[in-house]
Amino acid sequence: MKIIEEKNSFKIEYNSKILIEHSQQSPFAFAGSGDAEYKMYRGNFEIEDYLESRVPLKYFQIEEEANYSLITLKSSREGGLSLKIKAGLVAGRLKLEFLESSSGINRLWLRLAADQEEKIYGCGEQLSYFNLRGKNFPIWTSEPGVGRNKETYTTWQADVKDKAGGDYYTTNYPQPTFISTKKYYCHLESTAYQDFNFKNDDFHELEVWNIPDYLLFETGESYLELVEKLTAYLGRQPELPEWVYNGLILGIQGGTDFVLEQKEKLKENGVELSALWCQDWQGVKHTSFGKRLSWNWEWNQELYPELDQKLKELKDEDIRFMGYINPYVLEGKSLYQEAAANDYLAYDSEGEIYLVDFGEFYCGVVDFTNQDAFNWYKEVIKENLIDFGLDGWMADFGEYLPTDCVLSNGKSAEIMHNAWPAIWAQVNYEAVKEAGKLEEVLYFMRAGFTGNQKYCTLMWAGDQSVNWSLDDGLASVIPAALSMGMTGCGLHHSDIGGYTSLHGNIRTKELFMRWAEMGAFTPVMRTHEGNRPSENFQVYNDQEAINHLARMTKIYKKLSKYIKAAVKENTEKGIPVQRPLFMHYEADQKCYDLKYQYLLGRDLLVAPVYQKEKDEWEVYLPEDKWIHLWSGKEFNGGEIKVKAPLGQPPVFYRKDSESRQLFEEVAEI
Amino acid sequence: MKIIEEKNSFKIEYNSKILIEHSQQSPFAFAGSGDAEYKMYRGNFEIEDYLESRVPLKYFQIEEEANYSLITLKSSREGGLSLKIKAGLVAGRLKLEFLESSSGINRLWLRLAADQEEKIYGCGEQLSYFNLRGKNFPIWTSEPGVGRNKETYTTWQADVKDKAGGDYYTTNYPQPTFISTKKYYCHLESTAYQDFNFKNDDFHELEVWNIPDYLLFETGESYLELVEKLTAYLGRQPELPEWVYNGLILGIQGGTDFVLEQKEKLKENGVELSALWCQDWQGVKHTSFGKRLSWNWEWNQELYPELDQKLKELKDEDIRFMGYINPYVLEGKSLYQEAAANDYLAYDSEGEIYLVDFGEFYCGVVDFTNQDAFNWYKEVIKENLIDFGLDGWMADFGEYLPTDCVLSNGKSAEIMHNAWPAIWAQVNYEAVKEAGKLEEVLYFMRAGFTGNQKYCTLMWAGDQSVNWSLDDGLASVIPAALSMGMTGCGLHHSDIGGYTSLHGNIRTKELFMRWAEMGAFTPVMRTHEGNRPSENFQVYNDQEAINHLARMTKIYKKLSKYIKAAVKENTEKGIPVQRPLFMHYEADQKCYDLKYQYLLGRDLLVAPVYQKEKDEWEVYLPEDKWIHLWSGKEFNGGEIKVKAPLGQPPVFYRKDSESRQLFEEVAEI
Repeated sequence: MKIIEEKNSFKIEYNSKILIEHSQQSPFAFAGSGDAEYKMYRGNFEIEDYLESRVPLKYFQIEEEANYSLITLKSSREGGLSLKIKAGLVAGRLKLEFLESSSGINRLWLRLAADQEEKIYGCGEQLSYFNLRGKNFPIWTSEPGVGRNKETYTTWQADVKDKAGGDYYTTNYPQPTFISTKKYYCHLESTAYQDFNFKNDDFHELEVWNIPDYLLFETGESYLELVEKLTAYLGRQPELPEWVYNGLILGIQGGTDFVLEQKEKLKENGVELSALWCQDWQGVKHTSFGKRLSWNWEWNQELYPELDQKLKELKDEDIRFMGYINPYVLEGKSLYQEAAANDYLAYDSEGEIYLVDFGEFYCGVVDFTNQDAFNWYKEVIKENLIDFGLDGWMADFGEYLPTDCVLSNGKSAEIMHNAWPAIWAQVNYEAVKEAGKLEEVLYFMRAGFTGNQKYCTLMWAGDQSVNWSLDDGLASVIPAALSMGMTGCGLHHSDIGGYTSLHGNIRTKELFMRWAEMGAFTPVMRTHEGNRPSENFQVYNDQEAINHLARMTKIYKKLSKYIKAAVKENTEKGIPVQRPLFMHYEADQKCYDLKYQYLLGRDLLVAPVYQKEKDEWEVYLPEDKWIHLWSGKEFNGGEIKVKAPLGQPPVFYRKDSESRQLFEEVAEI
Repeated sequence: MKIIEEKNSFKIEYNSKILIEHSQQSPFAFAGSGDAEYKMYRGNFEIEDYLESRVPLKYFQIEEEANYSLITLKSSREGGLSLKIKAGLVAGRLKLEFLESSSGINRLWLRLAADQEEKIYGCGEQLSYFNLRGKNFPIWTSEPGVGRNKETYTTWQADVKDKAGGDYYTTNYPQPTFISTKKYYCHLESTAYQDFNFKNDDFHELEVWNIPDYLLFETGESYLELVEKLTAYLGRQPELPEWVYNGLILGIQGGTDFVLEQKEKLKENGVELSALWCQDWQGVKHTSFGKRLSWNWEWNQELYPELDQKLKELKDEDIRFMGYINPYVLEGKSLYQEAAANDYLAYDSEGEIYLVDFGEFYCGVVDFTNQDAFNWYKEVIKENLIDFGLDGWMADFGEYLPTDCVLSNGKSAEIMHNAWPAIWAQVNYEAVKEAGKLEEVLYFMRAGFTGNQKYCTLMWAGDQSVNWSLDDGLASVIPAALSMGMTGCGLHHSDIGGYTSLHGNIRTKELFMRWAEMGAFTPVMRTHEGNRPSENFQVYNDQEAINHLARMTKIYKKLSKYIKAAVKENTEKGIPVQRPLFMHYEADQKCYDLKYQYLLGRDLLVAPVYQKEKDEWEVYLPEDKWIHLWSGKEFNGGEIKVKAPLGQPPVFYRKDSESRQLFEEVAEI
């Protein structure tokens, strides 16, 4: 690291890259204050900030110490606002620690040097954009929204009826971490509300609503090296349990009899099953939204008689059983009462238990900042889930921490809100780890923040609408997987068939089949019945779709050797299983703008069909020797068109791949 | 005026009211800079500001001079940003002139002392809110929007299809002037983009995107006194031409034969007519929006053969003829060519004539900052309109000045944009005045800004949707009239029947009839066929509606003696013809929140029915002796319900009125 100081300006250079350029006209930092109002309605936030001040910290003073530099930034030569930063290398990383600041500062804007051609990736799970340049991205965990595009009728209806339409940036999993094509990663350590603005030609601007702990950079020679370094810092996910590769995790509900009946039917029809995932294992509740769960996390013997026994029988036929939990407890039920009696729930400002509206029912928030409550919930997971015999679960939610609740650790809920998903992941992680089941149990989450890399075994893309929309349908899970990979979470999957059926969107058979095709080329295959199972297409009711699914599960299973190796790479090096093309074709500028294609591992190129009624598809292939999986036709790169009827998703493998024989076998399925 | 100075704070007191309270925690002014991007699509603006800085000017120094005080505000004791203000009384008004400021400042925020209970009115023509407290109001002239409420389907469709949905604050006529219930008026002299924020309990904040010339205050003992003082400052409208009171201005199109035929039919059926208003007198053009005009301002002999002669014959039967003009000239036509040849049109940054998209056709912008162009357009009005024999016209538009055009006076079009409507009014005013026709000719405008008070003979409420929506239908013209009155424009009227028929909104007979009922109790009655005449209800095709309209014109005509006196009050004192109830019932707190009722002059209370299928209506009456016009029933005030079938709009007169006999006669019609 080098600080190049001139009369009224300085630059911070790190591994020959200029990362920060300070001048009086364009200072590194602006400081100020604001007063935000957060309105939450069922996980959807309306945040309005009254900006009181934003003062350029134009003046600076740099003191060189043995191992670091002390930079003092000031708004005027003589006094005014000031900010002290300790800049230096820590374990090879460039770290800018924010040491002291004038009182009253609760907004900070940090400018990083940018090039006009530079592109940006990451910021957690981004469903509408992969290259983030040209837009700003608020970093605030929330419901992702239904529609997520103010120009769609679905979004408008969701906004008007439920304040739930969302926008291009709304996500369950935002994270203040990104990778630049200048070949560095940047991470801002803060859980406050942030807004990363990549609109400007000459600088990026990171807005944060507190004084963050530090800003961290590392450079790399390649994107492979960058994700490896990033995950060395953030942590990496363990490998997936071996049983996952047996086939599909079937999302199904309805009680022991129904579930086993469908399992049998699918199995007889050749569907390879790895697990039954029954989120209603703990009971159901019906609301106007659809079928919901009972939120008191224990086996519901009425709906699932003999489940304790059936679990074992299923395991004998190599099928696991998965359940569901989230970090809230339903008002009045046994877990709620236990938590309330022990002071484990968050309070409101009046000292009453804070009840959160989840849509026609209310729940308490287990206060994980209270170590006793944290431990208690781990025990709930161990006893009610693991000991009962579950091999995994959806660890749902985490985005709903109300900003006005009162927490045991005394910190503002505005600051804890973003931290919550990762703490929720940690609760699960520790429970599983302490049970000694880290390579046997699989839990998957949609919510996330810095820390999920270490604490969450698998991410899923959240609740897509059951349609073809770019921002909220099948297509959106592709940039989601890719941006997640660039944030250090390399294991991703989605609800095959989508989830949200509202405002006239009803899942079609075609959508299900296209989604299943894509799912076969991701680390994990799992279906979901959706929020309104009876109104939407369900695979077990249709022979053609069952056959299609059976074939896709065989493909997935056949591929598992290859996928497993990619998963191992993710565990060992943080290289995501689903990768953007530029990760292996850095010189090809076209690859940087592809958001609906990906590499699965090193040697497979997947370009899912995300529009309806297509039987051919346009694909971009970087220069290499590619073989079209189904036709065996060879391509050397470029923009091509291939036949892509149902059952033949556009997939290509590298002719020089060591797995070529495996791919040829897959093509025969 | 008194400046009360303490150690770190000062207050400005004026006529015993504290208007400004400066402290380090809440300074009077913040200064900074921003970089705005204005995108215009057919008069609808998307304005995005990148705020670079906002610095509190915490420190001050006050020097007392003979007739004024010199206040210097600074961001730091020693230097930083500074702003010099000359504060003193000028003609009894408190004037704060902005003398000097640090270079680079292009954003200023000014805080005024506020009370929690205070209410605010004015800011030009506001169609969604009358009391502006609790919201912010951008001051930027534009299309008002179709729907104007993001929760309506009409608005969503207009946004998606044409970026034209608008919002609660979008208006043709904004103005940085308001009246507070602390009994002062405030006017900020600037034509830059502004945003007046009335959301805070303790202060109002006026944001302005340049250094304004001055901030002006005056206080009054009553609202009557306040509007009198305000209009003494801003100017007042002349009285309406006598012929206006003859009855309805019939909005009709289609050529000499059709127009005279309908005139005859209506006349035979007892409709009192004062004028025919034929906006297509200069020809038509059909677009996907509907029927548009030809934008080359001269008599179209093809569509209106013999109009020169017919005008005279009409005048003989006491019916005037009105036309249409706007400040743009259609590409390629004669006026455009003349203007282009003489350098009268605004240019783009490349030096080419700036062509503005008006929806499937393009026009040049007559550059009124070029005195020659200004004079030329006056001559066009004199020769083509007045000399031809028109007795009035719609002086349409004025809101479309593109912010990136290049003007002759060298000023930024961002600064001139808001000024344009008032300059356009002035062009009309001078043309009419120079022709010696100020009390004979009537032109009416929708666009406005500071200056319209002096230069525009009559405002109309712009293009409502032909529906019952609060923000864009019949109801919206009531707050529009009231807020206009509180901004110094006391003559208002609207298109009877509404105008915009898009996105499934089709005018019904009932809507037309309710609108006509309301129109009879405004200064001017005028109908409009709307943008798609053939698809919408037209009065001349329906006998019942003709009879209803006939009766309403007789009522209007009968009332004219009373209305005329109110119009005279407006000309002499600036007291608006349509008044909020609190203007005469200051002690009644309920009156301050009524936005859909008004007083017509002193003695009539009008509560238009603005919902469909009603035959009774709730009305609030302040304490007084009121007589219901139709039933003769007497009320002493309070919330009451009256029968209100079609033909009996809820109207009440004061029992003690000097015009009681006239009202009794009206009731007999």
